Amino acid sequence: MKKILSIVCFSHLLALLSFGGNILKLESPDKNLICRIIVNDYDGKTGNLFYELDYKTRPVIKKSILGFNLSSPEIKLHSFDVVASTITTTDESWVPVWGETKLVKNNYRQLLLKLKTKDSIFINIVFRLFDDGLGFRYEFPAQPRLNHFIIADELTQFALTGNHKTFWIPGDYDTNEYPYNTTALAGVDASGSKFVQEIHTKTFFSKDAVQTPLMMKTAENLYINIHEAALINYPAMNLVIDKSSYELNAHLVPDAVGNKAYLLAPAKTPWRTIVVSDKATDILASKIILNLNEPSKIANTSWIKPQKFVGVWWEMHVGISSWDYSGSQVGSQQSTKVPHGANTANVKKYIDFAAANGIDAVLVEGWNTGWEDWFGKWKEDVFDFVTPYPDFDVKELAAYAKSKNVKIIMHHETSGSVTNYERWMDTAYRFMKNNNYNAVKSGYVGKIIPRGEHHDGQWMINHYLRAIEKAADYEIMVDQHEPVRPTGLHRTYPNYLACEAARGNEFNAWSVGNAPEHETILPFTRLMGGPMDYTPGIFKIKMSYYDSSKTNQVHTTLAKQLALYVTMYSPLQMAADLPENYNQRLDAFQFIKDVAVDWDDTKILEAEPGEYISTARKAKGTENWFIGAITDENTRNAVLSLNFLNTGQKYIATIYRDADKAHWKENPEAYLIEKFIVDAKTVLKLKLAPGGGCAVSLMPADAPAIKKIKAYKK
Amino acid sequence: MKKILSIVCFSHLLALLSFGGNILKLESPDKNLICRIIVNDYDGKTGNLFYELDYKTRPVIKKSILGFNLSSPEIKLHSFDVVASTITTTDESWVPVWGETKLVKNNYRQLLLKLKTKDSIFINIVFRLFDDGLGFRYEFPAQPRLNHFIIADELTQFALTGNHKTFWIPGDYDTNEYPYNTTALAGVDASGSKFVQEIHTKTFFSKDAVQTPLMMKTAENLYINIHEAALINYPAMNLVIDKSSYELNAHLVPDAVGNKAYLLAPAKTPWRTIVVSDKATDILASKIILNLNEPSKIANTSWIKPQKFVGVWWEMHVGISSWDYSGSQVGSQQSTKVPHGANTANVKKYIDFAAANGIDAVLVEGWNTGWEDWFGKWKEDVFDFVTPYPDFDVKELAAYAKSKNVKIIMHHETSGSVTNYERWMDTAYRFMKNNNYNAVKSGYVGKIIPRGEHHDGQWMINHYLRAIEKAADYEIMVDQHEPVRPTGLHRTYPNYLACEAARGNEFNAWSVGNAPEHETILPFTRLMGGPMDYTPGIFKIKMSYYDSSKTNQVHTTLAKQLALYVTMYSPLQMAADLPENYNQRLDAFQFIKDVAVDWDDTKILEAEPGEYISTARKAKGTENWFIGAITDENTRNAVLSLNFLNTGQKYIATIYRDADKAHWKENPEAYLIEKFIVDAKTVLKLKLAPGGGCAVSLMPADAPAIKKIKAYKK
Repeated sequence: MKKILSIVCFSHLLALLSFGGNILKLESPDKNLICRIIVNDYDGKTGNLFYELDYKTRPVIKKSILGFNLSSPEIKLHSFDVVASTITTTDESWVPVWGETKLVKNNYRQLLLKLKTKDSIFINIVFRLFDDGLGFRYEFPAQPRLNHFIIADELTQFALTGNHKTFWIPGDYDTNEYPYNTTALAGVDASGSKFVQEIHTKTFFSKDAVQTPLMMKTAENLYINIHEAALINYPAMNLVIDKSSYELNAHLVPDAVGNKAYLLAPAKTPWRTIVVSDKATDILASKIILNLNEPSKIANTSWIKPQKFVGVWWEMHVGISSWDYSGSQVGSQQSTKVPHGANTANVKKYIDFAAANGIDAVLVEGWNTGWEDWFGKWKEDVFDFVTPYPDFDVKELAAYAKSKNVKIIMHHETSGSVTNYERWMDTAYRFMKNNNYNAVKSGYVGKIIPRGEHHDGQWMINHYLRAIEKAADYEIMVDQHEPVRPTGLHRTYPNYLACEAARGNEFNAWSVGNAPEHETILPFTRLMGGPMDYTPGIFKIKMSYYDSSKTNQVHTTLAKQLALYVTMYSPLQMAADLPENYNQRLDAFQFIKDVAVDWDDTKILEAEPGEYISTARKAKGTENWFIGAITDENTRNAVLSLNFLNTGQKYIATIYRDADKAHWKENPEAYLIEKFIVDAKTVLKLKLAPGGGCAVSLMPADAPAIKKIKAYKK
Repeated sequence: MKKILSIVCFSHLLALLSFGGNILKLESPDKNLICRIIVNDYDGKTGNLFYELDYKTRPVIKKSILGFNLSSPEIKLHSFDVVASTITTTDESWVPVWGETKLVKNNYRQLLLKLKTKDSIFINIVFRLFDDGLGFRYEFPAQPRLNHFIIADELTQFALTGNHKTFWIPGDYDTNEYPYNTTALAGVDASGSKFVQEIHTKTFFSKDAVQTPLMMKTAENLYINIHEAALINYPAMNLVIDKSSYELNAHLVPDAVGNKAYLLAPAKTPWRTIVVSDKATDILASKIILNLNEPSKIANTSWIKPQKFVGVWWEMHVGISSWDYSGSQVGSQQSTKVPHGANTANVKKYIDFAAANGIDAVLVEGWNTGWEDWFGKWKEDVFDFVTPYPDFDVKELAAYAKSKNVKIIMHHETSGSVTNYERWMDTAYRFMKNNNYNAVKSGYVGKIIPRGEHHDGQWMINHYLRAIEKAADYEIMVDQHEPVRPTGLHRTYPNYLACEAARGNEFNAWSVGNAPEHETILPFTRLMGGPMDYTPGIFKIKMSYYDSSKTNQVHTTLAKQLALYVTMYSPLQMAADLPENYNQRLDAFQFIKDVAVDWDDTKILEAEPGEYISTARKAKGTENWFIGAITDENTRNAVLSLNFLNTGQKYIATIYRDADKAHWKENPEAYLIEKFIVDAKTVLKLKLAPGGGCAVSLMPADAPAIKKIKAYKK
């Protein structure tokens, strides 16, 4: 017998449901999504628990198991009776400390399912169904028979309906810096990860494993994105593909002894998220992951400032200065020695450039002792985070930066030795405050110490958050590099401005780099979890500029580098190239000066993963809009209606576009800047070069400007 | 061809010794010990390196291999050419900050052997031959072909000459709190360790493994003790017995991923030590391990004070008060709740008792929050070391203790969560200084976090020393419980007053306890490495005093508890029983009040491991002597000449002895106190009960006392 319980909109407990073969149904507010929870399934597996998800009557997730195996106590948690279920509806909006929109709408219907095993172990599963997807999490209430426990395996499944097109990177316990692959699900082969030479610390575990956020597209043009939200006190989830059934199975990152998570009831897992739509733009616009995180735990957020920065950094990647004092540590190892980058005079040059161009801050890497022997040796005591090289005058630079109203961004490279960093963290943050630093870029390059732990295991997940929380105690903003992929925690900890957690722009400087499609995939994958410090803005595209023997290059045009400031959302944006390179092209740099880092509104105008993205954003507290449009290796005509502009208002559109013969490989630095008067009726037609892009600023025009500048006509 | 190179007393480099089959010979200053180093051995194993040790022409160590296997770089380091050898002689004395003697004599002959492999990897081995034993260590000089490296195995061997009588505890990575076994070498079976229920965290790895210090006695009555000195940045060594050949093979404690040690040249291993004599008393008097450690690294040691203390501690072990606020955490789990021990009023009672009896300090355990859920769950965030329970008034007690001129000793139980402790350590030490604490007892009960690391592995070895060094920065003295067994580091870090690292007296309160022989073995084993906080002084011997259902008891007489203050050397001695128990027997407590904790001289009068020890010590800066004599389960007549006293001087001997019918089990608390006048010609005849002992104080007598007190005649 199969029963369907359709339980709509009431918020009290249902009576104990102990009869067999139940299905509970949850609908999204717009009724497009339906989630069914199946208990005591008809196929005879008594008590097992499954869920299904449909979008507009089409199955998205087929019957998929839920539950756990524990290793302590040694019990299975996937066979339950339903104790109670409650459905509630939430429809609210909230104001982010910073973000892509002024308000975030949070509208979902929730099913709280209370379950117990035969041995009277209680767990809850909470399902939240939004118009654009599903989030669900497990809760372990405080109870007599479950106190401390250890997760051996989470059984969560995502049974897909077919051999979807998939944008994936290999499953890994330690790195997310792989280039993206695009194959059918059945074509996934992660074993190639072992041959990705440019990533030193990587831990392959299955040829069938991929990481989240996992972006897929069905044959019916449905877009599906699987990830997680609010990853706290729990390991990150990889997904292992069963290529015969297209089931994805959760695979948690283990700790040094093979356990997955040490929990103490009451406890909660992260949310498992499935964003789904028939429009790719909806995926990028989804706020599910943000909504599934808790509101800010920081009461006073007045010290948290979205910002742009330059830094003593790219020059090490291109090999003209070094992190270390002895001059040998550059992006790609080379035999000739170069000057130490983080010297007082050089840093002053960056401060001067920042001050002259309204850039908020200057990052300085390689300022502290230890870089001569920091890498690849699993060495524990590497850096102390407070001892500068002799040519870096902390006090003098603090005073100089202050006099220019520029902040210096601290750099803490842990070299993966996190036990060491944790011993120093308080001292290091105090040192920062004493020297007027209010933001830190931290790095986790290398194998983790505690040895046997992984970047994405529970211990490190807890560390990343400890570092963020302790930074908040000192009113310090954080930008983590090489951490776990983000899961929306910047809502709860808005001082966590950005992180890397993917293959950044610097790979272009010294490796095979990032394919032209790379930046069209990142927003659909890595950025689903939160802002990325991708370090765009490279104007000298080819590394042969620095060293004629080098063939490395950035795999975009210059104009596309500008567009990335809009298509790749982050409240922390680097202008990554060297001041001297910007000074040669101040006309193009004007866009970086103008573009905002905090927004009142965002419109995803068009998007297709792996092909193109065009995004418009309205700068916080102004009437200025900025557009970024990018394409993959193919040329593209982007046709963008400006109907989001205020009706009747005229704007000066400054268009930073690829020159007609521009090409990411053949002619990447050819750009043109044009100005037009536009309004809400204008439809921009932008031609993007192969690997190209276009950046547009739209600022309200006064009468003289309207007279002087010609109207846009195409 | 066999050549013997007898190289005596010159300190310049020998020429390259590249011919085959060499033997280098080193003699002890008194020529009783001879160490031979054999290179390019005649048995055809070209290049292998061995050593041998003879004592008075009798072999002690037969041909035993030296060297390593590395896992990174993956090379073998046990096949060498001799590059150079140098013999030097040292004969000096040094003044310890505190100790058993005013001066320590350091007289040895050293062979520095410089070696290289076929691949031009250089290592040195340093042999130091004293009159009472051998120490040797490996050194890895800075060199082009060896920088960072990982020890897979240390090959060091101790090939014994026969099936010696052996006093041993099982090899283990995490605990040294086993009771001692006495068997022939071939009779060692460590697999019983798995059944030692009273030790929660233990890691068995081989039935043939034992720990050091390993005490042995040959059929020819030669006493041999094997241990290590200056264990720094390296794992502890267990010994695995080959029962067919009586070879002992070094087995280093592995880390979480199975490696043994991560080193960076220049690096040194600990010293491997072999103390040997035909007199058991010489083993106890040996200063080899202390001499092989470096002088104090603490320049100003004026704040370091040997001391006696009482504490809120034994009452938890006997089950009448609890560590936790809710009253459930006592020595052996029991269902009835008891009051929280560390409450302000109770601590004041201890402070009053200490002040009234010249006791320096009061230890308080269970003062801080976290004890309700601290044990056995591999929980990371347990204690914060700064938050008191509501009934423990930190400020009031600090003021009260100060007004009474008594110190409170801080307690830091890490529960094995060392990552957590390291995060708090600075804050915790600052909290101590702010509240007038200058000594900390730290505890490491439970499985270690970082998970997969062990108490005795390199990471923890580094932690113990970090804690000691950081404490020194704050002028804090340290008493570590459940750490690795000590190796003489208290010479280098004299703020490291004592540690536990063996089966302490508290096991008697709630387990099968410690056999009567236990304290006659400890000085020959555990105490070879350094002072132990054994917590003697229990006057209420039987736990039935507290709870009639209990059959646990201390396995000594009361008089033996007094004798332990002399036989078990420590600069930190607890008077472990409750003030009310002492107040009932203040006549016996007088010995604890009188006995010193720092000494100008020490005489081991007689000793046999597992049977008896009688020791006399002269209190620092006085003419007072104290004698402790103890026996195992057998009664004993100790005959002790007082010829160490000043000739012509009369002394009052106060003898605290077992009553005539005393017996550790039947009648343990029966004691007598007698006073006599003695001098250097006196021979004391002391009858020790089964499991009994005798304590004697000897203080210069003035004329009236000589008249009043009768002379000793027996």
